[in-house]
Amino acid sequence: MAVRVGCLGGGQLGRMLALAGSPLGIAMTFLEPQDGSSAGQVARQLVGEYGDPVLLAELGAQSDLVTFEFESVPEASARQLAESCPVFPPPRALLVGQDRLEEKLLFERLGIPAAPYLPIGGALELGPALARLGTPSRLKARRLSYDGHGQVPLAAAEAAPAAFAQLGEVPCLLERDVPFSRELSIIGVRGSGGETAFYPLVENHHQNSVLRLSLAPAPRLGPALQSQAEGVCGAILSDLAYQGVLAVELFQVGDQLLANEIAPRVHNSGHWTIDGADTSQFENHLRAGLGWPLGSTQPRGVSAMINLLGELPDPRLVLGVPGAHLHLYGKAPRPGRKLGHVTITGSDPGAVTAATRELGRRLGARVPKPPDGNSYWAA
Amino acid sequence: MAVRVGCLGGGQLGRMLALAGSPLGIAMTFLEPQDGSSAGQVARQLVGEYGDPVLLAELGAQSDLVTFEFESVPEASARQLAESCPVFPPPRALLVGQDRLEEKLLFERLGIPAAPYLPIGGALELGPALARLGTPSRLKARRLSYDGHGQVPLAAAEAAPAAFAQLGEVPCLLERDVPFSRELSIIGVRGSGGETAFYPLVENHHQNSVLRLSLAPAPRLGPALQSQAEGVCGAILSDLAYQGVLAVELFQVGDQLLANEIAPRVHNSGHWTIDGADTSQFENHLRAGLGWPLGSTQPRGVSAMINLLGELPDPRLVLGVPGAHLHLYGKAPRPGRKLGHVTITGSDPGAVTAATRELGRRLGARVPKPPDGNSYWAA
Repeated sequence: MAVRVGCLGGGQLGRMLALAGSPLGIAMTFLEPQDGSSAGQVARQLVGEYGDPVLLAELGAQSDLVTFEFESVPEASARQLAESCPVFPPPRALLVGQDRLEEKLLFERLGIPAAPYLPIGGALELGPALARLGTPSRLKARRLSYDGHGQVPLAAAEAAPAAFAQLGEVPCLLERDVPFSRELSIIGVRGSGGETAFYPLVENHHQNSVLRLSLAPAPRLGPALQSQAEGVCGAILSDLAYQGVLAVELFQVGDQLLANEIAPRVHNSGHWTIDGADTSQFENHLRAGLGWPLGSTQPRGVSAMINLLGELPDPRLVLGVPGAHLHLYGKAPRPGRKLGHVTITGSDPGAVTAATRELGRRLGARVPKPPDGNSYWAA
Repeated sequence: MAVRVGCLGGGQLGRMLALAGSPLGIAMTFLEPQDGSSAGQVARQLVGEYGDPVLLAELGAQSDLVTFEFESVPEASARQLAESCPVFPPPRALLVGQDRLEEKLLFERLGIPAAPYLPIGGALELGPALARLGTPSRLKARRLSYDGHGQVPLAAAEAAPAAFAQLGEVPCLLERDVPFSRELSIIGVRGSGGETAFYPLVENHHQNSVLRLSLAPAPRLGPALQSQAEGVCGAILSDLAYQGVLAVELFQVGDQLLANEIAPRVHNSGHWTIDGADTSQFENHLRAGLGWPLGSTQPRGVSAMINLLGELPDPRLVLGVPGAHLHLYGKAPRPGRKLGHVTITGSDPGAVTAATRELGRRLGARVPKPPDGNSYWAA
């Protein structure tokens, strides 16, 4: 009776997909090595490796279609599944999302501005590349780099060999740091008929390369900036013949957006959409995959999303903050681990700002100050 | 790690409680005779009767506290549980909700206006009662009457003996029909410290005594009417030393509200709060039970909630309607059975009205016309 959607990966993104799917009559099954995973607590789970061919066959047999919830899923697994069962987003998007060089080549091919870079295949290429790009720059492993892992900032050329050694001398990119004024992201969704919808740009604040705070819509967001971001996201969606939700992380330099990286899945910077938009990114991802009409991406007022890292908060402290919505992932505390998030929504930007800072005080979290002292969303 | 909440009953109300609880770190277990129940599909379930003392003990042992999701739960079960584990709402509220006479006596004691009635203990009492109350009136079984079951309308006194026989000659009330202009309901919530919050009054439309459409906030809702309803609900909450969500169904006669019945639980006429209010009735019920701060009951624009009865709709048809949010309960189709609901939300009352009528056309459901032809919420 229910529509059966399988998913590679069973973390918090899967959990929120499952919770969004239940009201739509969608029953999800997750393939995930960790028993009692975040997603497995609220849906069915097959316990095993993402590459296990027997479990992949079982997942395919039990699913009307399959998706994935993190981009390190082996592309071969997605391709095996795709032989017996529709897979969305297209496995090719995994390939691009997993390799910074593929990503850069995609941006180039589509005329999407990005920071200057050069590929680094071996230590001998470091010197000439640094001579061309200069410093400050950073060395990034092509594969498996996320949340600050797999990249080393270079203040001076002399540091490059040690950085390359630190990364295990794997294939890398050397990327020139760009003097961006802020980090933004856009989440878009493309349906089976090629129709697209975009959430408003979000401003993201990181600490130690991990997302701490997202402001949605991004402060000082004019139609030109939004349109530029939709152009970037829309071009990628279309080029990949994409189905589902795609996130694009961007740097703003002056009035120009530079693409940083893509995530072919629901994304941390879109968690605010559960409480702060007409339709959540999770619901829209499933709707897109199933060929159902997309839901409205309109925001409801403004939202601030704060990640809960390392320690579980007392729910009373969180829920006593006006407009706060708590989302815990059912994960055991561990230093730095993403355990949940809080979204504060409201129609008054000043009140949402005040509530966000109050939450920061209650949780002992450093929350960035609003530029003018009163509101994140002030001009 | 998770807070463990047990629940007697595992229907759609339980399912929506479980889905609201997951993000808050609440893991629910349901005691429900039907295997694979609506709630059991998204949470843990003990399969068995509500009165089974062994399963009740097991539920109590596995739960930090226990609630119930329909009012026909045996009060004795709630009391057994209450000996080992906190139970909310208070079992006494079950007693009142299960017996129309208790309900009427509560209204009387609190000075809450209600339709005139007389208790009927046997056939001999019918004549004198009808002589005093007149017709049109209706005979209602004191216990186990809901959704139109267990009551018979009486156009003339002569029909009374047959109606009484039809109800099995169980203890009844004879109630005078009141010439109400509309049916309303209010949902209130009371926390552990006695704090209360109320959702706006909702206008309810029934067909064959089953709720089909709720409009929230109720059209033409002034502060006086809302305040009257909050007074009624608040008096009951306080008198019962209540914790959790309570629904009160009301008739409007002129500017006066008459209490019809109470439901000591989350309620069908509050389903719109999932999509249309800052905090859903399900989340607030759990927050109240746990002694956590209550969430804002502010509506987001206006909402129309349409029950899906008997047949499962094509999700594409529903989701193509602007502002529509689909909620399916994972139940097998059966004529007249509540299988799900759709809430249409928006800031523009005319657009929500138009979308509601469009949904009615797509599903072939008779949706009441707006009084002025354009908007349910017009003056």
